[in-house]
Parts: sequence; structure tokens; C-alpha cells
Amino acid sequence: MDRTVDLVADLGEGFGAYSLGDDSALLEIVSSANIACGFHAGDPDIMDRTVAECVRRGVSIGAHPSFPDLRGFGRRAMDLTAAEVRNDVLYQLGALSAFAAYHGTSVSHIAPHGRLGNLVATRQDYATAVADAASRFRPDLIVLAQDGELAQAAAGRGLPVAIVGIADRAYEDDGTLVPRSQPSAVIHDPATIVDRTIRMVCEGIIESASGVKLPVVADTVLLHGDNPGAVDLARLIRKELTAAGVTIAPLPQALAAKVEAA
Amino acid sequence: MDRTVDLVADLGEGFGAYSLGDDSALLEIVSSANIACGFHAGDPDIMDRTVAECVRRGVSIGAHPSFPDLRGFGRRAMDLTAAEVRNDVLYQLGALSAFAAYHGTSVSHIAPHGRLGNLVATRQDYATAVADAASRFRPDLIVLAQDGELAQAAAGRGLPVAIVGIADRAYEDDGTLVPRSQPSAVIHDPATIVDRTIRMVCEGIIESASGVKLPVVADTVLLHGDNPGAVDLARLIRKELTAAGVTIAPLPQALAAKVEAA
Amino acid sequence: MDRTVDLVADLGEGFGAYSLGDDSALLEIVSSANIACGFHAGDPDIMDRTVAECVRRGVSIGAHPSFPDLRGFGRRAMDLTAAEVRNDVLYQLGALSAFAAYHGTSVSHIAPHGRLGNLVATRQDYATAVADAASRFRPDLIVLAQDGELAQAAAGRGLPVAIVGIADRAYEDDGTLVPRSQPSAVIHDPATIVDRTIRMVCEGIIESASGVKLPVVADTVLLHGDNPGAVDLARLIRKELTAAGVTIAPLPQALAAKVEAA
Amino acid sequence: MDRTVDLVADLGEGFGAYSLGDDSALLEIVSSANIACGFHAGDPDIMDRTVAECVRRGVSIGAHPSFPDLRGFGRRAMDLTAAEVRNDVLYQLGALSAFAAYHGTSVSHIAPHGRLGNLVATRQDYATAVADAASRFRPDLIVLAQDGELAQAAAGRGLPVAIVGIADRAYEDDGTLVPRSQPSAVIHDPATIVDRTIRMVCEGIIESASGVKLPVVADTVLLHGDNPGAVDLARLIRKELTAAGVTIAPLPQALAAKVEAA
Repeated sequence: MDRTVDLVADLGEGFGAYSLGDDSALLEIVSSANIACGFHAGDPDIMDRTVAECVRRGVSIGAHPSFPDLRGFGRRAMDLTAAEVRNDVLYQLGALSAFAAYHGTSVSHIAPHGRLGNLVATRQDYATAVADAASRFRPDLIVLAQDGELAQAAAGRGLPVAIVGIADRAYEDDGTLVPRSQPSAVIHDPATIVDRTIRMVCEGIIESASGVKLPVVADTVLLHGDNPGAVDLARLIRKELTAAGVTIAPLPQALAAKVEAA
Repeated sequence: MDRTVDLVADLGEGFGAYSLGDDSALLEIVSSANIACGFHAGDPDIMDRTVAECVRRGVSIGAHPSFPDLRGFGRRAMDLTAAEVRNDVLYQLGALSAFAAYHGTSVSHIAPHGRLGNLVATRQDYATAVADAASRFRPDLIVLAQDGELAQAAAGRGLPVAIVGIADRAYEDDGTLVPRSQPSAVIHDPATIVDRTIRMVCEGIIESASGVKLPVVADTVLLHGDNPGAVDLARLIRKELTAAGVTIAPLPQALAAKVEAA
Repeated sequence: MDRTVDLVADLGEGFGAYSLGDDSALLEIVSSANIACGFHAGDPDIMDRTVAECVRRGVSIGAHPSFPDLRGFGRRAMDLTAAEVRNDVLYQLGALSAFAAYHGTSVSHIAPHGRLGNLVATRQDYATAVADAASRFRPDLIVLAQDGELAQAAAGRGLPVAIVGIADRAYEDDGTLVPRSQPSAVIHDPATIVDRTIRMVCEGIIESASGVKLPVVADTVLLHGDNPGAVDLARLIRKELTAAGVTIAPLPQALAAKVEAA
Repeated sequence: MDRTVDLVADLGEGFGAYSLGDDSALLEIVSSANIACGFHAGDPDIMDRTVAECVRRGVSIGAHPSFPDLRGFGRRAMDLTAAEVRNDVLYQLGALSAFAAYHGTSVSHIAPHGRLGNLVATRQDYATAVADAASRFRPDLIVLAQDGELAQAAAGRGLPVAIVGIADRAYEDDGTLVPRSQPSAVIHDPATIVDRTIRMVCEGIIESASGVKLPVVADTVLLHGDNPGAVDLARLIRKELTAAGVTIAPLPQALAAKVEAA
């Protein structure tokens, strides 16, 4: 087995006196980070500390831009124009890049957060806005996305695209996620999640809710750290992937390995 | 006469539905812009439009970072640590740089705004914070400052420093500005201001409030546009400088011309 | 002619260093004010000044709550729950009421702003949320609304309802406004607007875009002040109404006069 | 023993997705709450929930206004004018009062938070600003303060004043608190804190850092809930006070009992 994959999680999601999730535990597990940029969470001091810690541990850095809605944690839809989305994304991407520069590195990828992250999968105007922002900011910025409009818009601009696999979410037969509004949307059993992750990464297959075996290419696997159980599960996933002979590597290296293998 | 000087003004200081100052008139006059970065004024859409317009007209771009105080327009002191100042400056500098990248250019200089701009002239910890942010963001970023702690801290890190001349402010005999709290701090007579600008740029001399002739090196002259009279005066200053044989050029070229001349 | 009507305008819509509209001119014309409460515009200092000025001139005070979107001036839809709308409205209503208390008066009415104001006319859940907030804040708070869900929800809770007439907007045959997306939505000719206002107030009739004479009850007429022409028109409307024998009175008195007349 | 005292804690200090402290545990212990009003913590939804819970449990409600600094949790000094302080306090006080009205009660007291709370003890202009806001908002609003400028300004306006005792802070011989900058400022040993609380409430005495017995009148005792140990200690304090025959009652009743006893 010669497979290389990235493990990614949302980090730096505190604000001021508030913290959220166990960043220091997650930073021992992941190889990449989606870092909040101040619009749904994060502030300049937290961004500085999070980037510094990523650099210290060799974790690659991604921007996690959001709708401007700190109170709603970026989970509430806002009726923005595509130009507003593009400008909000540029602002956040640039802000994070300054901390990367300060710590001697650069931003490797971009991954829209929350409701914006959902909408770019289906709204072409928002997808185009994000891809435009990314490609003119830096033409080799990796766009982390599910299959959908953003992945397409990014590929169309020649940007490297990393497909994220989400092992704890149920899939429809067409490869889209079962919406969170449905009770079966989220898978909770740790053993099932580990098993799905291994098959997704090693065999390129994920089983849909109805039992259909779907082909998937997961360049990165999304992990969570919002409760102690989640961190334990994240640790277990890393251990089992390694035991299965999979190499864990930051997103740029994971993508490069795929290109090489192809 | 072989003198080259930059003309700079604060631009992009609206917010959302609000506008402030006559940016389009000023953009025909200045060669550089201090662009608000969202903390005292400015938002991503305004930053985008302002940068686009600067590029179209060949006006060089500077970041105008502030304390995080939109309601106070960055004019109220806040008791921030030096690390908080450094991180707030990095955030704003990075945010603006993304719009510069989007429009195919880069940020040429940094000039702290308002109360932060006052404090970096005298507080060594804040001056160091800003110079640190600037030099690690990009070692050739020009720091625009009055004589004082920031100019020193920037020079100490090898950053290019541009000294700003303020012809409508009275100077003490030691070269510092008469504080705004004193009635004589601001000079209002247009003819006097034009005259002081010409002497400052062409002869390298400014007369203090008590009549002492002080040597000054003004790499750039600060213009205002917050009322119709200010814009007319700015236009007149440009015209008179040109008539006196002075070349007006964006800040990087103005600094380069000085080095060449030396 | 024995008709009494209120004239209302949106006031206090500056923020920090920014101003918007000519409040001092409008305050000489209107009898009531919709005062911004900090979410789309306004800040505590502006609210204080605006309330003080209203008290000085006998202008009655209304809360003008909005979605929490200063940058979008409350014009962008946000996907809030009804409970969030209710709490946001309560917060703003209470905040304004403190300035009213400070200046020895109280808030007379509530009138949702911008996109929230549009949505409460058609979304029953939002209308209920606003009516709930109003009635439990104070059971005699006047709700200023167009015909629609909010007017109904308020009446259903026993709240006094004031119907606002908008003479510069075209009406459909069913009494709703022609949407702004259509070119004919806004009427620009001052003479036409004055004429429509007089007929609306004196005859209780407004002519729809297709020429149908619709019965209307306008307890208050909405005036604008966002440009010099608007202020002149507002002044003219007041003058012509007075010339037609109409009494201009603050909203509580205008409503009381209607009850008496009935 | 016939002593009645109030137990108070800071509550509702989460924001959006963030929580801080164990409010539900504290609500079983305290008789009054200082509720965050959105400037350093708290948002309309949290204010609504916190007020509802206080009403359900018979806990009296206080406004906990702050400098406008969510990111700094109201702990950073801001150079505001006295008028700005007054208006910011009015805004927050009014906002909270709307939730009190909604839940059928009213705000009983006001207690400035964080840095503002420190400054009103020594800055006469800020103390006057807060007392002005309170007395014109409602002339019987209780002002919760340490001995100092605010207590004096409030008493001077005829407002009821409640002195807060802080058993886990060391006192100077003049009755002021040892500043937090000194290592001995905070007392950590639970038994000592319980003992100091009992003596303070029952005997009206607190021992200064140098061993001097100071007379104190504590109308209310400040408890904390920011970690599990703090909640346990708060519970123990309540138990030991009750065992000593002290009646725990909400602030208005505790003050009334004092007046009666006098």
C-alpha cells in the first residue's frame, strides 16, 4: 500500500477570552489546519498563536473564511452579492497570509467555512467568487472542497483541488451528503467511522446510505475536536490509517504524492 | 531643481453605506494612498474599489492600520499590549495585501492611523511592534512616519523609511508637532500652507512656531480631502510644486530618486 | 376638513464619525422619528443626541430595529430564527428606551427597518416575533407598519397599529407596493408625490399603477431626507398638507384623533 | 443572628457559540446576577435565556455594562469621554431592561464590569457618568459598587447603594483592594475565603493584609463560577453562611432588611 493522505481539522476557532475545541490535542493528530480568520471565529492574537503552533509542528496552513457573522459562528446564511463574497474571502485570506509570512511560511490552502462552505458547493456565483479570489491571490493555492461547484470553478481556473472526505457523514447515491436536517445525516459509531475512513482512503470507496459502493478520491480527511470523544476518535483514525500502511502528510505533499502516483 | 516628492492622502475611509471625503477628487492629485483596512474605517468592498482605482491611476498603495475602533474612527486610545498591536497591524496589512494581489500589484508602504499613529511616534513598544510586523511581512515595505520611535525602529530593522511632512501643522523648535490641544496647532491659511510646503520640499526647511528655521526631509507630503476647501488646497499644492520644478512621484519612486540623488 | 396625520422619517442613521441624511432639516418637518438603534446604523452617542433633539422639538420617538448588519445597513437578508429576531428587536427597543427615559420621555412606536421591515410584511414568524417583543415590552407601544403580517399580528395582540403611507412608491391593484426590482417602483416627480400625498391623506385614496383608486388609511406619511431634493420635497409636503387644512401631529396624537373622529 | 445578605455572580458571559462559566450551577447558589449586556460578553439570545432562568429561580437581575470591547472582554482600558461612558451604559442598561420586561420583571441593580468597574471606583468623571445614567433611567435602581467614587456619586443622587464584599481579595489598611499586579492580591485557600466571608457578613469585619481589622458593610458577596473549584467554593460559602444563621436574599430584599434592622 502506497497511499498518502492529509488529515485536516478546523482550528483557531476561539475568540478573545473564549476558546472552542482542543486545539493542542488536535495539533498532535492532523497534518493540515483550516484556520479561522476572524469573521466567524478567531482574532489576530489567536491567528498568530495558531499559525505559530502549526509551523512548530509542520502542520500546513489553510484559510477558513466565512460569512461575517461572529455571533452566528458563520452558520447563518446571509444574502451577499458574489462580489461581497469575493471581497470578504480576499480580506480573510490576506489577513491569515500575514501571520504565515510573519512565521516564515505561507498559506497552502483555502476551505470556506460553515454556511458559506455549504453554499459554494451548489451556488455557482459564490463558487466563482471564491475561486476568483483564490486564483488571483496566488495561482497555486490549493482549494479544499467537496465535489461540487467550487471544486469545478477552481479546477477551471487551473487551481489545485483537494477533495475532502467526511467519514462521519452519510452519503446519497449521487455522492452528495445526506442533509443535516435528516436524522441519519451524521454517523456516530466510532468503529463505523474508522472503518469508513480506511475504506475511503485505501480502497477509494464509500458506501452510501442505501448501500451503494461509491468511488471517492479523498485527498484529505476531515477530523473534529469539539469534544473529548471527537479527539479520541481523531487519534484512533490516525493510528488505524498508519497501521494500514497509509502515509499521513500535509496537504501539499499529499497532493504531490497523488500526482506522482498517477 | 531636481527634487522628487510623493503626495499622499488617507483614502477609502468610508464604511458600508457611509462615505467620507472626496476620494475621486483626491485620486487625481495624490501619488500615494494610505488605505483604511477595516479597523477604523474601510470594508472589503471599499478596499477593493479603492485599490482598483489606485492601480488604474498609478497611485502607490499603503496600509493604514488602526486600533480596532470603528465607532471612534481609531482616534481613541486603547490599552493594548505590544503583541496585540503587532497582531492587529499584521491582520490589516495582510488583508489589504490580498486586494493588491487581486489587482496585480502589491502594498508599497505602511502608515499607522490616528491614535495609533500618534503613539508609535513616542511609545517604543508600539513602534517596535509595528516595525516587527512590517519587516517580517516584507523586508522592503516602506514605513511612512514622522521623526520618532517608529522611524527609528524601522530604520533599525533595515526597512526603508519615508518621512512625512505636514505643512498645515505648526512645529516646535525640536521638530515635533505642536499638540492639537493647543489653539495654534493647525495652520488654516491656504497661502501659508502652500508656501510652507514649497520651502519644505525645495529648500528642506520648515519654520517653527517661534520662527526657527528647522531642517526637514519630506519624502512625502500629507494632503487632506475631508472638505471641498481641502481638496482645492491639495490641488493648488500639487500645481505649485510642479510649477517650482518638483517632480511628483509615487512613494517608491520618490524614495529611489532620493537615494540616486544622494 | 378635520384630518390629523403624522409625518415620520428615519433619523439618527449616522455611525461614529459618519453622518447620513440631514437630520436637523428633517426635524423641523416631521412629527415623529424612526430612530436607528445601533444594528444597521446609530450608536449610543447619536441615539442620545437624536432623542434629545426630538424631545426639544416635540417629535415623538420610535425604535427602528434592524438585522445586525452595520456594513450592509440592514438591507441584506439574514437567515435568523424567529427567536433571534425577537431577541434582537427587544435588545434594540430596550436600548433606545433608556435614552428616552434619560430625556424624560418614552418610546412611542416601533418600525422595523430595511430588509427586516420588508420581511415582517410577509413572513408570519418574523411578524409574530416583532409583535411579541413589542407587546411584552409595553402593551400600548404603537406598531408602525404597512398592511401585512406585522400589522395583523400586532392588532391580534391588542397593540395600536399605525398604517404608513408611502406616496413615492407605486402600488399594485391589491394594495401592496410594486417591488423595487421593477423600474416603475419609485415615483420621482415631486408634484405627483405631493398630489398623491394629499389625496391619500384627505380623501383616503391612492391610485394604483394601473389607475385603480384604492382606499387607504394613512396614519402617518413616510418622508425622506437622504438628499437636498428629498428635504425640499418633505418641506413642500408638510406645507401643502397644512394648506389643505390637515393637522400634523405626533403619532400618538394622530392615532388618538382618528379614534375620536370614528 | 438576624443578618441578611445577597450572593451575586457574573452571569450570561458567553457569546454566540461560546460559553463561559457554569451558569446553571451558579444559578442554584446566588440570589442576584450581574448579567452581561453585549459589550464585553452576552448577546440578545443569551440575555433572554439568562433573564428567563433568573426569573424562574427568583434571582434578582442586574446590568453588567462594560467598555465596548468584546475581544478584550472589557478588560482593556479605552480612552472614552464621560459622555461616551454614560451613553454606553444607558444603551446596555436599556437593552437588558427589555428582556426583564419581556419576562415580567425589571432590572434591580447595575454593576459596571471589568476595567470600567475598576475605573469608576477612582475616576470621578466616569463615576458621575454611571450614576447619572442610572438615576435618570430609574431613580430607585440599586448601584452595586465597592467603596469609592461610584458609591459616592450614586449616594449623592439618592440612589440606593449596595456595597460588595470580595472575600477572596486581599485588602489594604485603608479598605481598598490590593491591586491585582501584586502577588498577594488574590486569596486562593478555600477555608480562608469561607472564614473571611463569615466574619465579613456576621461581624462586619475583614482583616487587611497586614492584620488590621477593618469594619466592612457587605450588602452582597461576590462569588465566581469560572472553574469547577470556584463553583464548589461558592456552594460551600452559601452553606456555611446559612449554617451561621444568615439569610440569603436577592439584593432588593437584602437592602430592605438592612434598612429595617437599622
